[in-house]
Amino acid sequence: MVLATSSPVTNHISPASMSLYPTLEDMEVSHMAATQHAAEQKLTQNAITAAGSGQTMDIVSGLYPTLDEWMGMDSKALQVYQPLNSTTGAIAPVTGSHQSHAEIKQGVRQVIGCKDPGSGKIGLSVESISKGVFVSYVESDSIAAKAGLRFGDQIVQINGESVAGWNKKKTIEFLKKADASQIRFAVRDRPFERTITCVKDSHGHIGFQFKKGKINAIVKDSSAARNGMLTDHFITEIDGQNVVGMSDDKILKVIKSKERTVTVTVMPEFVYDHMVKHLGKSLKKHMDHSEPTEL
Amino acid sequence: MVLATSSPVTNHISPASMSLYPTLEDMEVSHMAATQHAAEQKLTQNAITAAGSGQTMDIVSGLYPTLDEWMGMDSKALQVYQPLNSTTGAIAPVTGSHQSHAEIKQGVRQVIGCKDPGSGKIGLSVESISKGVFVSYVESDSIAAKAGLRFGDQIVQINGESVAGWNKKKTIEFLKKADASQIRFAVRDRPFERTITCVKDSHGHIGFQFKKGKINAIVKDSSAARNGMLTDHFITEIDGQNVVGMSDDKILKVIKSKERTVTVTVMPEFVYDHMVKHLGKSLKKHMDHSEPTEL
Repeated sequence: MVLATSSPVTNHISPASMSLYPTLEDMEVSHMAATQHAAEQKLTQNAITAAGSGQTMDIVSGLYPTLDEWMGMDSKALQVYQPLNSTTGAIAPVTGSHQSHAEIKQGVRQVIGCKDPGSGKIGLSVESISKGVFVSYVESDSIAAKAGLRFGDQIVQINGESVAGWNKKKTIEFLKKADASQIRFAVRDRPFERTITCVKDSHGHIGFQFKKGKINAIVKDSSAARNGMLTDHFITEIDGQNVVGMSDDKILKVIKSKERTVTVTVMPEFVYDHMVKHLGKSLKKHMDHSEPTEL
Repeated sequence: MVLATSSPVTNHISPASMSLYPTLEDMEVSHMAATQHAAEQKLTQNAITAAGSGQTMDIVSGLYPTLDEWMGMDSKALQVYQPLNSTTGAIAPVTGSHQSHAEIKQGVRQVIGCKDPGSGKIGLSVESISKGVFVSYVESDSIAAKAGLRFGDQIVQINGESVAGWNKKKTIEFLKKADASQIRFAVRDRPFERTITCVKDSHGHIGFQFKKGKINAIVKDSSAARNGMLTDHFITEIDGQNVVGMSDDKILKVIKSKERTVTVTVMPEFVYDHMVKHLGKSLKKHMDHSEPTEL
């Protein structure tokens, strides 16, 4: 039976055809598709084959069982929360798959790093906020950057030791004393950040203004407005590429380089200010701004 | 070919066997499983059948292709971000599936409501924060509660009109004038909130203290500490059930009623204070505290 191939693995991964961050534009396309799909369903209802278990196959798309059959769930209840592509797999979302670089994952992940054999450094700085330890600096080309640590990540353990309640000094001293060959971090993915995917209009605008990295105005009736962009937030990433410490001109260039959709990662001002308060100009300049590598 | 059944639909849905919010405890179980799986892989490597396309099937689990084959991706690169169950589907996560009520979805969803035929009310109040309009009150048993609006949701459109930049007064007046029979909301799911799943220890403790709903201490070496719980945050939900306005005793009762794991939804103090500043005691008392219905 084909349903057996639905291993838990697939549920962690988004295929290239799917949008991680459905935009309002996606929602509207999806609703049109759902309406159309429902009409098609009605037309072909008499032709639907009932399998032994009471499962019916969707004749219209041919390949896919409908949502109800797939999970034994009520698709109506789900549609409230998952409007996008929940009734048909046939429609490509407006937003693309590049967003996966930006996706903020739930839960705790492990990152394994070491110290640079030359400098003895990891290329990392931290700040302590509300009893948590957060990555406030990742040096360009450092081990930390290569291991995948990001500005805004919360470190919950180092080498199996919980760091809850540690301050910056204690954390850095612990790292200094740690074995150079292998350092294990347990990390919660950028807890104070959030992504908003916008779609460019015919002029290439997504609809907000920013100054020194901080969003200070939302353009009326723009994609940013429709998708709930907020002021008093700093831009930390564009399509998953860190832009903290970049000049506004450079950030704008990164946004302009994107084709149709742009996923903007933002952090509320009150956290951002705390996070970067000890970063001098030179540190900001050496911050990792590399483009995310393809998954 | 069986891979064709991997419709986009499956990627939106988490089966009951899977943890939405891998805890640190899950990560550790997963790492053990991965190590064991790798050892088993080695043992059976000679027995693996290579299919025509170069795909190999995982003989150990029998049913599932390995991660590499499944998506044509490098499983090593993925494991960094997706440590849980990424190499084997055989291990049940520590945390359960009840968390799906709490899950904060990315993107924008549509909610359709109307006014109560008797009172003419929706049962909703809002606050404006950083040019966004947020749900600050959902009345118990109201249309808003039944439609699935939640404390902390960001309303981005009402009846197709973007509300970006609207204040509380303008939003409420717009709602008052709206057609009673159908009101369409486009909503971004609780943008300022975040969930942390904790596992109870042998005494039933998850490891934090709170007062008037606000987390003020994290217990050393507890599950809360390991999973990155933060102080200066208010508890807004337990396993997806709204607890804003509940007494501490009642919140504790809800936590105690949970078996092994508890998913706590939190909101930073600075947003929470703004959100509830116009809620009097009586409003808080009438806030929707119903348990989430089964999906």
